[in-house]
Amino acid sequence: MTVTKRESGLGTTGLPRPAAACLLVFVVAMLGGRALGADEARPRTMSEILGASKPSDWRPLDPENTLYLQLEAGRVVIELAPDFALLHAANIRSLARDGYFDGLAIIRSQDNFVVQWGDPDGKRGLGKASATLPPEFTVAWTPALPFTRLPDVDGYAPAVGFSNSFPVGGDPAVKQAWLAHCYGMVGAGRSNEMDSGNGAELYVVIGNAPRQLDRNIALVGRVVLGMELLSTLPRGTGPLGFYEKPEQYVPIESVRLAADVPAAERIGLEVMRTDTPTFEALVESRRNRQDDWYKVPAGHIELCNVPIPVRPQP
Amino acid sequence: MTVTKRESGLGTTGLPRPAAACLLVFVVAMLGGRALGADEARPRTMSEILGASKPSDWRPLDPENTLYLQLEAGRVVIELAPDFALLHAANIRSLARDGYFDGLAIIRSQDNFVVQWGDPDGKRGLGKASATLPPEFTVAWTPALPFTRLPDVDGYAPAVGFSNSFPVGGDPAVKQAWLAHCYGMVGAGRSNEMDSGNGAELYVVIGNAPRQLDRNIALVGRVVLGMELLSTLPRGTGPLGFYEKPEQYVPIESVRLAADVPAAERIGLEVMRTDTPTFEALVESRRNRQDDWYKVPAGHIELCNVPIPVRPQP
Repeated sequence: MTVTKRESGLGTTGLPRPAAACLLVFVVAMLGGRALGADEARPRTMSEILGASKPSDWRPLDPENTLYLQLEAGRVVIELAPDFALLHAANIRSLARDGYFDGLAIIRSQDNFVVQWGDPDGKRGLGKASATLPPEFTVAWTPALPFTRLPDVDGYAPAVGFSNSFPVGGDPAVKQAWLAHCYGMVGAGRSNEMDSGNGAELYVVIGNAPRQLDRNIALVGRVVLGMELLSTLPRGTGPLGFYEKPEQYVPIESVRLAADVPAAERIGLEVMRTDTPTFEALVESRRNRQDDWYKVPAGHIELCNVPIPVRPQP
Repeated sequence: MTVTKRESGLGTTGLPRPAAACLLVFVVAMLGGRALGADEARPRTMSEILGASKPSDWRPLDPENTLYLQLEAGRVVIELAPDFALLHAANIRSLARDGYFDGLAIIRSQDNFVVQWGDPDGKRGLGKASATLPPEFTVAWTPALPFTRLPDVDGYAPAVGFSNSFPVGGDPAVKQAWLAHCYGMVGAGRSNEMDSGNGAELYVVIGNAPRQLDRNIALVGRVVLGMELLSTLPRGTGPLGFYEKPEQYVPIESVRLAADVPAAERIGLEVMRTDTPTFEALVESRRNRQDDWYKVPAGHIELCNVPIPVRPQP
């Protein structure tokens, strides 16, 4: 299993090249276009940086902050972000431990926006979880909050960067920080009232980063494995991408905290730390691609285009 | 059929509200949160702007620049952009008219990046089309090129905006402009050589805008209908999201120019013009959402978050 994000140039199948040459083009593109050690002075590619990373560049997921969303098609793994949504994370843990989500469904899939799940009928009791929560849309930006700032300009926030492997925005003027709506981020749906979100209905971003949602709703975590099980769901044909008929709902078999699952059934994952020279080098390797395919380095990287690698625990 | 893009806030099913109230939340969110005429002084919502648009705010698609990509699941409609890729558009027209794509397949689906189609074997002849083309990665930014500039900052380009209903970047210093890699944009895959793209292998952006590709490859157009038929395809499990087995390929029944299809089989679509006060108002309505759901207006809009509405011809 390799869950480290791969992304590269757009090779062609190489008309009129034979198939062997085509494969080579793809592999070279994947590796960044150069053989290891070919030129010591050149910048390293992402693959080389990942390959040379140290154990200390990674941190394991905390089982108390790891959710397993089990669908018929497989398991989606979500890392909660209690640094930014302490009360929502506690509510979601309580709901998961009560089996609240078991047998509920994915009810919405809106192209280039979100997939959303919860109780279609709105009748299931929340157990010990709170029905309303204070709006954890931003947190105080104190020295205690990890914040590795990107030098790149961003239109949605005066400052952007990473906090403990999550993408964040921040405003030094008002000393606030918040999770950013990047691809794969998970949030708690709410109604018009700011305190109406409680974690019983969750959404995940499946399209271009809808950063206008930042500071308007509580993000609670990020999908770190199995994103494709959500992003490929048939789009709903009702308003806002809701499924129109109950038979279109995608059943949720269960949602469990990793901490509550027998060790043998857990997936050992670790995420790259974002406060390290290794991560800084990775960002630069993506800001200015150095390979045989790219001709013009971008000279910039948008917050949500920075990969935050995840891998199986060695 | 309504193909105008809808996107709005993230309602919950409204625990503990009854179902009727839930539905109301969604509909209100869709309409922008206020009834028409409630307050003449307030900014208009996107729905109101679309509803009040004039026929002159729209232009029909040119059948000579409209491709129908026919899959078993339905038809994808692509608008070509010859202003930016004149030679690629001509090559693609030639290939379509020769039936080049018929019976070929979608061979790649990489999560949060691209879906790509072409000849898996690389053996099919190109007919009268060119095997190589000059790299149409940028065009001269002359006064003849329509360019409605966005005031919003962008990290990937000194200037961004719209040209004839396509998202574009530009650099006044070198007088160059280029199509931008937003969700739904279609480009011509190439190998490492800059002239190796020819339009026989095409990709579409299905994830967060990979703007680092701008100026590195020729974009040729945009999906204006049926995007969900591509974005929901199962992800490939090979390197870079390629399908590993031929039986996973998604067959292409045909690719036709609308001009070559009997009038009764065409889909009459029109796209909103981007050089009008109506479009400017629409952009502002998305830059600073004014409804009962949004609490903090973004004060900014990223180029690729601006919807470019498409609708059936009245």
